[in-house]
Amino acid sequence: MKEFNLAIIGLGNIGLEVYKNIKKNASDIKKKTGFKLNISQICAKDIKKNRGVKFSKNIFEKNIFKIINNPEIDIIVELIGGSEGVAKKVVFESIKKNKHVVTANKSLISKHGDALSILAEKHGVNLLFEAAVGGGIPIIRSIKQGLIANRLSHIYGILNGTTNFILTEMEKRNESFQTILKDAQKLGYAESNPTADVDGFDAADKISILSSIGFGSKIINKGFLVEGIRNIELEDIKFAKSLGYKIKLLAIAEKIGNKVKQRVHPCLIPNDIDVANIDDVINAVVVDGQPIGRTIYEGPGAGKGPTSSAVISDITSIMLGNDEFSFGLAPSAKKKMGLINFDNHISRYYIRFLTKDVSGVLSKITLALAKNKISIANLLQTPSKSGAANIMLITHVSKELNIKKVLRNLSINKKLFKKIVMIRVRDLKKL
Amino acid sequence: MKEFNLAIIGLGNIGLEVYKNIKKNASDIKKKTGFKLNISQICAKDIKKNRGVKFSKNIFEKNIFKIINNPEIDIIVELIGGSEGVAKKVVFESIKKNKHVVTANKSLISKHGDALSILAEKHGVNLLFEAAVGGGIPIIRSIKQGLIANRLSHIYGILNGTTNFILTEMEKRNESFQTILKDAQKLGYAESNPTADVDGFDAADKISILSSIGFGSKIINKGFLVEGIRNIELEDIKFAKSLGYKIKLLAIAEKIGNKVKQRVHPCLIPNDIDVANIDDVINAVVVDGQPIGRTIYEGPGAGKGPTSSAVISDITSIMLGNDEFSFGLAPSAKKKMGLINFDNHISRYYIRFLTKDVSGVLSKITLALAKNKISIANLLQTPSKSGAANIMLITHVSKELNIKKVLRNLSINKKLFKKIVMIRVRDLKKL
Repeated sequence: MKEFNLAIIGLGNIGLEVYKNIKKNASDIKKKTGFKLNISQICAKDIKKNRGVKFSKNIFEKNIFKIINNPEIDIIVELIGGSEGVAKKVVFESIKKNKHVVTANKSLISKHGDALSILAEKHGVNLLFEAAVGGGIPIIRSIKQGLIANRLSHIYGILNGTTNFILTEMEKRNESFQTILKDAQKLGYAESNPTADVDGFDAADKISILSSIGFGSKIINKGFLVEGIRNIELEDIKFAKSLGYKIKLLAIAEKIGNKVKQRVHPCLIPNDIDVANIDDVINAVVVDGQPIGRTIYEGPGAGKGPTSSAVISDITSIMLGNDEFSFGLAPSAKKKMGLINFDNHISRYYIRFLTKDVSGVLSKITLALAKNKISIANLLQTPSKSGAANIMLITHVSKELNIKKVLRNLSINKKLFKKIVMIRVRDLKKL
Repeated sequence: MKEFNLAIIGLGNIGLEVYKNIKKNASDIKKKTGFKLNISQICAKDIKKNRGVKFSKNIFEKNIFKIINNPEIDIIVELIGGSEGVAKKVVFESIKKNKHVVTANKSLISKHGDALSILAEKHGVNLLFEAAVGGGIPIIRSIKQGLIANRLSHIYGILNGTTNFILTEMEKRNESFQTILKDAQKLGYAESNPTADVDGFDAADKISILSSIGFGSKIINKGFLVEGIRNIELEDIKFAKSLGYKIKLLAIAEKIGNKVKQRVHPCLIPNDIDVANIDDVINAVVVDGQPIGRTIYEGPGAGKGPTSSAVISDITSIMLGNDEFSFGLAPSAKKKMGLINFDNHISRYYIRFLTKDVSGVLSKITLALAKNKISIANLLQTPSKSGAANIMLITHVSKELNIKKVLRNLSINKKLFKKIVMIRVRDLKKL
C-alpha cells in the first residue's frame, strides 16, 4: 500500500484540529482513498505547550527548511496565515521542492495565487485551498468540479462569519455594534484586531478567489469596492426591518462580457430573498451559471471543525491522485479581465443622516438629492440623543456616482451632519 | 495532448443536451482538464429524427455492442434509464470491457450499485453518477470529497422536483392535486405515468444512494417506509398553513449506531425551518456531520441543463485522472447496515378524517385515540361536500405503531370514514 507523508506547519487551533481529525479518522481515510496517511512532521512555535494530545517522539521540527527539504514529505499543510513572511516563504519554497501544498490562507492566495498556481503547474504538484473560502463548505471544489460544465455569471453571498454574527446578534439582542463586537471577541468569533473581518477585507480576499475560479480570470485583488460594517448602527437595522429588509455584508462578483464587477459591501436585502435568512456565523454562496441555473451552498463559515474538514478534503484529493488545477483551469489559460467602473452602478440606496435637529436640515438634504436627480421612496425622521435627529431614507433607483456626489457635498457640513451612513439596497431576486 | 473518446448511449432530452454542451464548451473543457474530449459514437433509437443539430458523419452506431467492444472508446455515458433491460446490460458490459461509465440512472444505481461498484473496482475503471441525485447539485461529489473527513449522522431533504412543484403550485394556485399534476405533465415536469415521482419511489432511490455514500453502508434499497403525495388535498395544505406549516415530501436518512433509519414521506414542516421554503422544482439536501456541522446544498433538481451539467462533471473528473470510488470508499469496506424499525418512531402526527357528518363520529375518533394513549393538540372540523365533514387534528408526540393501530381500526369503518390522511409533523430544528 502506498503511503503519504504529511507535514503540518503551524499548530494553532486549526493545525491541532487537523492533526486530531487525521488521527481519529485514520482508518476511514484508508478506506476512502486506498492509501495510508502519516503525519510525519509538525512545525510549531511552542512545542512544549500542553495541547491535551500525545504526539509521537521526534515529530516536532523547529527548522521549517528541514521539513521543506525532507525528501520523504509528500504534502505540506501551511496553517500559519498572512500573505507575506513565513507563510509565503513556506508555500513558495515547498512547491519549488515539488511538494503538494494545502493551505487555508485566503490572504496569501488572494495576493499570490496566480504566481503560485503557475509555479505548482511547473513543478507538477497540487496547490489546494478549499478552507480559504466558506470554511467547511466545499465551495471551491463545487465550482471547479461540480460546475465545470457551466459558464458562470454570478457568484455572491455571505463569506464572512464574524460580520454575519455581529449583524445577526445586533438585531436579536437589540445591542450596539461595539457591544456585540466585544462579545464576538470573547467567543473567539472575532480577532482582537477585528479589521480584516469588520472592514470587509476578509470577504474581499474570498470573493477575489472565487471570481478567479468561477470566471477563469486572473485574480482581481484590488481596485474594487470594499466596505465593512463598522458604521452600521442599531437604528439602521431597525429601520431596515420595519420595511421588510435585513442588513447583510455581501461579497458579489458578476461577469459582464469580458469584464468583472466585484465588490464587498453591506446590503439591505428583502426578507424573502435567498441569503437574507442566513444567520450567525453561517456562510452561503449563490452561484448562477448556464446550463445549470442557480445553486446555493450553505454551512459554517469558520471554526476549527469546518476548517479542518476542508483542509483534510484537500489532502485526500491529492492522495486520490486528482491532478487539479489550483484555480480550475490551466494557469496559462487564465485571462486578465478588467474591473467594471462602479460609479455607473444602479441601485436603490438607504441613507441615514445623523443631524442636529434644526430647521432647514431636511430641506438641505432634499435639495441636494433633487439637484442630482435622486428621488425619495421612503423617509423617516426620529429624535436621537439630545438635540440630534436621525433622518433615514430610501431612494428610488439611482446612480452610484450621483449618490456619492450628494454624500460628499453634505458631509462637508460637519456641524449639521454628525454622521452619514449609506447602504445599498438589493431588490432583485436575480441580483 | 491526450484525448478521450466518449460514446453517448441514449439520445433523448438529456443525451442531446450533453452532446450540445460538450460541443459548445470544447475549448473550456480543454483548458480545465488539459485534455481533448471527442464524442466518438452515439447510439440512438431514431437516428433520422430532426434534433436541430448537425452530427458528424458515421457518429451513429445502432449496435450497442459494437460501441462497448470498440477499443477506442474510453468513457461510456448511459442515458437510457431503467434498472433492468438495456441500460443494465450496457453498464455491466461496458465496465467488463474496462470502460469508464457515467450514468444519470438512479434506479439502476439504487438496485445494482453495490455489484457495479465492485465490478468497476475489479476492472480499474470509474463508475460515476452525480446526475442520479439532486439534478445539477454536486451533492454526491460534495459528500464523497468535500465532506470526506466527516462522520455523517443525517442526510435529508427534498430530492424530487416533480412532487415539490406539485405541492408548491397547489398552495400558490389553490388547485387540486389532479389539476396541478396535469399541468406538471404538460410542462414536462411529470411523466405520463407519474408513479415513480408522486408515490415517492424516485426519492427513495435517491436517498438509498446518498445514505450508502454518506454512511459507508451497502445500499438499502427496500424494506423502508416510502409514501408519496397522492393523498394530499388542498384541505391538508390549508390547515397546515393556518398553523404555520408547509407540506413537503422529504427523504430522510439517519445513522444511529450501526443502523440506518431511512424513509420517504410527506411532512408538515414549520415555515422557518431549512427546507420549508425550497419551492417548485428546486431540490435541497441537508447534511449533518462531525467535525463540520451542517451544510446545505440547493439547486435545480431536474431538467436537461442541470442534468447535463452533472453528467459532464463526471466525464471531466475521469479525464482529470481522479480515481474515485463510486460510493466514496472501497467497495470491500462497505458495511451491511440494518434498518431501524420504524414502528418505534416518535413524532407528532397530522390526521384528516373525511367523514359523514353524523353525530358520534368525533367521539369514535377521540375514543380510538385515547385508547392508544394518543392525545390531541389541535383540532378543526369543517364542512365538506354534501353531508360530509373534514376533521383535522394534530396529535401530541406519539408512537408510530399506536397511530397505525388507530388508523387501521377506524379505516375499517368505510361507511363512516371515506378517507383518512396521515402526515408526520417535523418539529425539531435538528430533524
